[in-house]
Amino acid sequence: MTLLIRGGTVVNHDDSFRADVLCDNGVITAVGSDLEVPTGAEVIDAGGQYVIPGGIDPHTHMQLPFMGTVASEDFYTGTAAGLAGGTTSIIDFVIPQPGQSLLEAFQTWRGWAEKAASDYAFHVAITWWDDSVHDEMSTLVREHGVNSFKHFMAYKNAIMATDDILVASFTRCLELGAVPTVHAENGELVYHMQQKLLAEGMTGPEAHPLSRPPQVEGEAASRAIRIAGTLGAPVYVVHVSTRDALDEITYARRQGQPVYGECLAGHLLIDDSVYRHKEWLQAAAHVMSPPFRSPEHQAALWTGLQSGNLQTTATDHCCFCAEQKMMGSEDFTKIPNGTAGIEDRMALLWDAGVGGGRLSMQDFVAITSTNTARIFNLYPRKGVIRVGADADLVVWDPNGTRTISASTHHMNVDFNIFEGRTVTGIARHTISQGRWVWCDGDLRAERGAGRYLQRPAWPGIFDVLKKRAERTAPTPVAR
Amino acid sequence: MTLLIRGGTVVNHDDSFRADVLCDNGVITAVGSDLEVPTGAEVIDAGGQYVIPGGIDPHTHMQLPFMGTVASEDFYTGTAAGLAGGTTSIIDFVIPQPGQSLLEAFQTWRGWAEKAASDYAFHVAITWWDDSVHDEMSTLVREHGVNSFKHFMAYKNAIMATDDILVASFTRCLELGAVPTVHAENGELVYHMQQKLLAEGMTGPEAHPLSRPPQVEGEAASRAIRIAGTLGAPVYVVHVSTRDALDEITYARRQGQPVYGECLAGHLLIDDSVYRHKEWLQAAAHVMSPPFRSPEHQAALWTGLQSGNLQTTATDHCCFCAEQKMMGSEDFTKIPNGTAGIEDRMALLWDAGVGGGRLSMQDFVAITSTNTARIFNLYPRKGVIRVGADADLVVWDPNGTRTISASTHHMNVDFNIFEGRTVTGIARHTISQGRWVWCDGDLRAERGAGRYLQRPAWPGIFDVLKKRAERTAPTPVAR
Amino acid sequence: MTLLIRGGTVVNHDDSFRADVLCDNGVITAVGSDLEVPTGAEVIDAGGQYVIPGGIDPHTHMQLPFMGTVASEDFYTGTAAGLAGGTTSIIDFVIPQPGQSLLEAFQTWRGWAEKAASDYAFHVAITWWDDSVHDEMSTLVREHGVNSFKHFMAYKNAIMATDDILVASFTRCLELGAVPTVHAENGELVYHMQQKLLAEGMTGPEAHPLSRPPQVEGEAASRAIRIAGTLGAPVYVVHVSTRDALDEITYARRQGQPVYGECLAGHLLIDDSVYRHKEWLQAAAHVMSPPFRSPEHQAALWTGLQSGNLQTTATDHCCFCAEQKMMGSEDFTKIPNGTAGIEDRMALLWDAGVGGGRLSMQDFVAITSTNTARIFNLYPRKGVIRVGADADLVVWDPNGTRTISASTHHMNVDFNIFEGRTVTGIARHTISQGRWVWCDGDLRAERGAGRYLQRPAWPGIFDVLKKRAERTAPTPVAR
Amino acid sequence: MTLLIRGGTVVNHDDSFRADVLCDNGVITAVGSDLEVPTGAEVIDAGGQYVIPGGIDPHTHMQLPFMGTVASEDFYTGTAAGLAGGTTSIIDFVIPQPGQSLLEAFQTWRGWAEKAASDYAFHVAITWWDDSVHDEMSTLVREHGVNSFKHFMAYKNAIMATDDILVASFTRCLELGAVPTVHAENGELVYHMQQKLLAEGMTGPEAHPLSRPPQVEGEAASRAIRIAGTLGAPVYVVHVSTRDALDEITYARRQGQPVYGECLAGHLLIDDSVYRHKEWLQAAAHVMSPPFRSPEHQAALWTGLQSGNLQTTATDHCCFCAEQKMMGSEDFTKIPNGTAGIEDRMALLWDAGVGGGRLSMQDFVAITSTNTARIFNLYPRKGVIRVGADADLVVWDPNGTRTISASTHHMNVDFNIFEGRTVTGIARHTISQGRWVWCDGDLRAERGAGRYLQRPAWPGIFDVLKKRAERTAPTPVAR
Repeated sequence: MTLLIRGGTVVNHDDSFRADVLCDNGVITAVGSDLEVPTGAEVIDAGGQYVIPGGIDPHTHMQLPFMGTVASEDFYTGTAAGLAGGTTSIIDFVIPQPGQSLLEAFQTWRGWAEKAASDYAFHVAITWWDDSVHDEMSTLVREHGVNSFKHFMAYKNAIMATDDILVASFTRCLELGAVPTVHAENGELVYHMQQKLLAEGMTGPEAHPLSRPPQVEGEAASRAIRIAGTLGAPVYVVHVSTRDALDEITYARRQGQPVYGECLAGHLLIDDSVYRHKEWLQAAAHVMSPPFRSPEHQAALWTGLQSGNLQTTATDHCCFCAEQKMMGSEDFTKIPNGTAGIEDRMALLWDAGVGGGRLSMQDFVAITSTNTARIFNLYPRKGVIRVGADADLVVWDPNGTRTISASTHHMNVDFNIFEGRTVTGIARHTISQGRWVWCDGDLRAERGAGRYLQRPAWPGIFDVLKKRAERTAPTPVAR
Repeated sequence: MTLLIRGGTVVNHDDSFRADVLCDNGVITAVGSDLEVPTGAEVIDAGGQYVIPGGIDPHTHMQLPFMGTVASEDFYTGTAAGLAGGTTSIIDFVIPQPGQSLLEAFQTWRGWAEKAASDYAFHVAITWWDDSVHDEMSTLVREHGVNSFKHFMAYKNAIMATDDILVASFTRCLELGAVPTVHAENGELVYHMQQKLLAEGMTGPEAHPLSRPPQVEGEAASRAIRIAGTLGAPVYVVHVSTRDALDEITYARRQGQPVYGECLAGHLLIDDSVYRHKEWLQAAAHVMSPPFRSPEHQAALWTGLQSGNLQTTATDHCCFCAEQKMMGSEDFTKIPNGTAGIEDRMALLWDAGVGGGRLSMQDFVAITSTNTARIFNLYPRKGVIRVGADADLVVWDPNGTRTISASTHHMNVDFNIFEGRTVTGIARHTISQGRWVWCDGDLRAERGAGRYLQRPAWPGIFDVLKKRAERTAPTPVAR
Repeated sequence: MTLLIRGGTVVNHDDSFRADVLCDNGVITAVGSDLEVPTGAEVIDAGGQYVIPGGIDPHTHMQLPFMGTVASEDFYTGTAAGLAGGTTSIIDFVIPQPGQSLLEAFQTWRGWAEKAASDYAFHVAITWWDDSVHDEMSTLVREHGVNSFKHFMAYKNAIMATDDILVASFTRCLELGAVPTVHAENGELVYHMQQKLLAEGMTGPEAHPLSRPPQVEGEAASRAIRIAGTLGAPVYVVHVSTRDALDEITYARRQGQPVYGECLAGHLLIDDSVYRHKEWLQAAAHVMSPPFRSPEHQAALWTGLQSGNLQTTATDHCCFCAEQKMMGSEDFTKIPNGTAGIEDRMALLWDAGVGGGRLSMQDFVAITSTNTARIFNLYPRKGVIRVGADADLVVWDPNGTRTISASTHHMNVDFNIFEGRTVTGIARHTISQGRWVWCDGDLRAERGAGRYLQRPAWPGIFDVLKKRAERTAPTPVAR
Repeated sequence: MTLLIRGGTVVNHDDSFRADVLCDNGVITAVGSDLEVPTGAEVIDAGGQYVIPGGIDPHTHMQLPFMGTVASEDFYTGTAAGLAGGTTSIIDFVIPQPGQSLLEAFQTWRGWAEKAASDYAFHVAITWWDDSVHDEMSTLVREHGVNSFKHFMAYKNAIMATDDILVASFTRCLELGAVPTVHAENGELVYHMQQKLLAEGMTGPEAHPLSRPPQVEGEAASRAIRIAGTLGAPVYVVHVSTRDALDEITYARRQGQPVYGECLAGHLLIDDSVYRHKEWLQAAAHVMSPPFRSPEHQAALWTGLQSGNLQTTATDHCCFCAEQKMMGSEDFTKIPNGTAGIEDRMALLWDAGVGGGRLSMQDFVAITSTNTARIFNLYPRKGVIRVGADADLVVWDPNGTRTISASTHHMNVDFNIFEGRTVTGIARHTISQGRWVWCDGDLRAERGAGRYLQRPAWPGIFDVLKKRAERTAPTPVAR
């Protein structure tokens, strides 16, 4: 299929310029002025609009089995909704049960994902440790294109990785050229606070943020970063929600440590007042971890993106409907944790970021796509408009508006945490693998069209680390 | 016994002034100009000298059973050496074995300490957890005058307190009005690094600091502080040796959290080059944890004292002789950890601190005596020269000099890490409980003269915390 | 006159204890349990109450000629109001006109102050520079007990001290043992912003804070601190109102530089929304410099007090009535800058500080009295309850309440920026120079009873600086 | 002329890949695998080597009249030496005398630069202010392609810009879309310290760093940044040499302010011990401002580059020979300030940066070329290897070595501050405007071949600022 995007302004992470973009057979084959229309090509008019690399969401949980239920959004509906919002790739998570083979879990998730409408990849979680885990990490990296492993520092008595696991797994990552990532919350503290609050009669969703105060995240971020620093490994902190964690990332980066941070559209835009909503279901619908935070933390996250101390944005898209949320009606610790967002991330970040005078268009591209591609070694296949790159593109209408609502969104969930917000700046057209899948309101996502993305080991962030390790190898004192 | 110290300049933490000091029956009974000499009183001429509160060393380990041996200094020799250097009180540590009754251990240490020549108190370590520990903490606080508990975050497979223990014990401390203290090093990382270094053939003392890099301490400090912060407890970090840990303390204090830090004379004055000494025994003699650090960290510690982010100084006095150190001749992890210092701390800090233009005399008194007394609720019985206070005093000669050496020191150990250093500013006379125990070079310490110091619960640092807890108690949302 | 305060709890900056306090001839003559009532002594019952050192306000402007008018509060009314609120000493400012003799101005202010009801001292402002200024600074220090000089970095074309003056004057202060203090706002920026706003038609009080954004203060604080640091001088920053300035102070203190910061009750408690009040006069009544700030800055100031990076509190008491404020009705730059507060500071800080769980009682004493006395060398004559100290005391009722109002206050101004606030914790009785001047609502202030306080040069904060200067004197390289 | 660089690995700021590069008529016309050799094309074999964008040095002073003499290096010799080292563009400085027309000075410099061998541009210094300066800034921006203005905050009584000038000029820059840049040292303090040191008999080069201690730079950086921040302008700090200045930049960037910092190869690699060299001329040869600093500051600068808080590297290339340096033999303040480096920067940064495990190759390209091009709006004409970009390229040999020496360098100066250093990683070939000007040791630089580079106004760093200005325009309160 041949497609010509004509008359727009291409925006990459480091540049913007007027150019047409020609896509053929799923890749970009020309970027230039006044390209000729090939015979039989579809033509998209991008006049007055921007042409940007398709968004990459590095943090989603499609159809996740969690807390006794399964997330309502599957790989097809979720990726399709992503395409409607300008997101053309996701990195989801394989989460083995403690004791379960990593490869077995990986294959399960691969099976679920076959229905995906856009390209996808997987981080794999390390939820336990023995020699088989050590060995299967190698297989995943070398044979299956996995280059990142996730560690939950929360969820005691379930999937929490204690320090011994962190040390072992980060060490292994470093041997394999894979990026360790962490969900940074101190699980012991969360557990303690949950029990304490329940004992005090605090059973509603208003107790959720109280059980996970900002220091709980700051602690875990500090710990993961310093474990990585001691071992000489990089580390990527998912869903940074607090000034506390950001400060730890910034502190380490100022000393030259390769630490990366991701933040969620929700944490940037929604504050913790939602948990005190008079209607239980409204409050419960916002239960996710880490929780939404006070405005002070939101402001900090924006400056984190501006200063480059946070590099990526995501959604932690993990949908649970009202009925599912009701599982915790008597006990907030039983409310399934998760909120939706994959369809709305790009527009929300443009509106509040570019429209809000916080980010340039180039910054926007960097934090929604390029940086993720670079950190997780998908670049320049993804994350840039350039000859040879995958034809994952969005025609972005800076003047288009949309009012977000659960009644109109394409996500398979009955609630939208951004309900009623009107954004300026929307995805007018989305091209995935060179196919026109979102056409000014018409969603043409195709079940199973998505491809699994192999991500090679040793992304560029290891370059410096390898050199450092050589230089600092210890030597005994001769006596 | 009546004693008049005549003609000196009294220096307290907040003031200095010319005054005579009269001591009677172990307490100070008058401070003023031209006091009359009571009949039968001994008179000490303090002309041209300073009269300061006796030093308090909040961190000693006399006759500690540790790493398969027992520290060579006992409570008598150690406290006597302290008196020779101007230290008139110590707080030592009761360290129960995991599984051992706290009270039983406490009684054991009480027995050992009966021979002490100066006053003493005990922190009690929490090395394990069950309901009996929970209950015995209360007994110790309420019946035995213990108001602080220590937690070793290092020493995996021995006395390390994991996060669940920290959470439980800090919570208990907060209920009892006792101060949680921590040895801040991440035990998992230390263990990992030790194994890695040994596997690489690094078996000598030069591997010791490599097994405990600065981030290992920064991590644990951050963790302890944030656990305390989440629970609403104060926390005191012993032997802060790195900029990393200091930065964590400073960060928390800047947000109004009651966090306190202690540093050691050794960490202020000795750098990590000692571990690469060509003679094994020289290097091994400096093995202690945390290790001595690079000059950058030393500089940071001094600024910590200057800015008030560190409040106290100590020695971690824990003596092992050459023969004991040799236990680790094939494996640095088996070298008994510990160095001496109780006799030298005061002079070293005066010389480098006051003489070095870093601290005022009043600061010197604060960091060697007053602040410790305030934090651990011995004030104003100890830590100040004032009517009613214990007559623990030092006549300090700012022009006196002394060259430190193992060949002349009074400590029962065959090595001095400060060997050969000449200090200006020395304890000319020491008065303990109103008795003249160090008289210009003549040590008159009396075996068993020391008293156990009861330290009441709820030191002043809890005042604000109690008020905060009241004000922030959570309330359910009415629905 | 003899006075016995019986049954209270004495609170000093470092201690609190049950004791009676005996005052005779203006000084404290005994502090102890169950003191006997001397014949003829007045007795104040302090049962259930605290006895604290009288407040010291280091920043007032009584009857100041400023911006074409004169502050409505004179030295009598102002100090009397202070006594009603528990403040027993002030440090006011002598502000010579550029070109005017410092001594002449000093004598003028001394004359005005003769009517004061409480003790007082003066900072002297350096508003210009030539050899006579250089010389008169010496006379003021050596003959008149002035040990601090003030520098306005704002007020271009009036009293602004440019960098050359700051360098010259700080250097001179260091020679004389006097403390340089600064009003930290960049006068060029303020002037520029004022002109810009006026040009844009912004003439009302809402433009006032816009003309002095936080960075304007951060800049000047940084500059003053670094000039002082380069010269080896201490520096005291008056009325710190922003996180920006506090961060500069904190940064310098963390490196061991002796920098001190004062904050105002108003900046701690009032935010910048007042400037957008619909009634011009309400808004104008709050015009002072630096302006009130957003809540983020207020929160920062509290943490500054908690962490010890700010040491003192003041009011910048400078009263202008409605008629005077109206001088700027067409042009916000002509609204006389100033607000009242001397009567309310102590109660406001107790209520929000101690009651609010931010400060302990001892901290409260430190920041309202002791620290000021120590920095400006009035200690221990002022700032502590101790035998020999001046009998300036307050019997503080922690349960007493008062609703602040211009209709009931004793200050000579028609507006109260704290109008309607009810505080818990009030001065029940005030004793000044041993006289009972505020007796449970009855103000017995006596015109002219106040004394001028000589403040000796070389306060203790210079001790370390002198030693440092000795140690770092430069030496030429021999060639 | 057609040139094919074959077989190398292209390294850009965001990517690296194997590719041939074809240059035709001065621009890059193809980048791809196995490009065909056009007829008549020269071919450079880059096998085993990297192909990188030519370096841009944003800070040089060719043939500068300064301190009573003229820099020995002219635009021809200097740019030729640059080509030998892999630098293909410079941005030099037009420095009008106070009172001189900016345009007149600009034309003078343009004339001098006609002999340049590589492309060049000019920053123009603002050394005084009146309406003509205001107007000529516009002419320079709109008609002469100048988009940056420099402000010297040092050099009192010469070219120092005081705060009023900074405020006026930054405001003007913001109107015109030009970047304000600053030499950040407090000129009043420098002047004071110089006089003080001379008065103390310190006349040698060892006094130079003492007259400009780190705080002097931190102060000025803070001031410039906060003036810019208040006005809503960007700011670029040249030759950041201290942790102090870096901390100010970092502080501002963490709050989202667009502040940029440059550092010099010399400050990264040479410490202040050079000023105490026993030979006067050795010491004097290192006199430049700001001076070389202690190792602590060097370490900080490297972390600044690593964390992205510093973006560019330069040399401040300004050559004075021994005879010229001798002008200050009796008075260090008369030693012409300046050192050489244009030829060595790239190799030094590769060696210490990439070789030292501090920077990746991509980082190296960013800080030596791309970032400068982006900030000063030369991108993507310069700073990247891409079709359409200028054919300014370097074939970089990562294994090539060179020992730096004045006896072999091409710079027209008799001293090299890096004398004797052997670097690994050198420019094997340099291509400028598509011409092979440095061919494995053979320098073929052509006098006058360089072109003046027009730099359009409104570089991308203004995008966000314009949006912010719109959003925060003040509005009067309706009353």
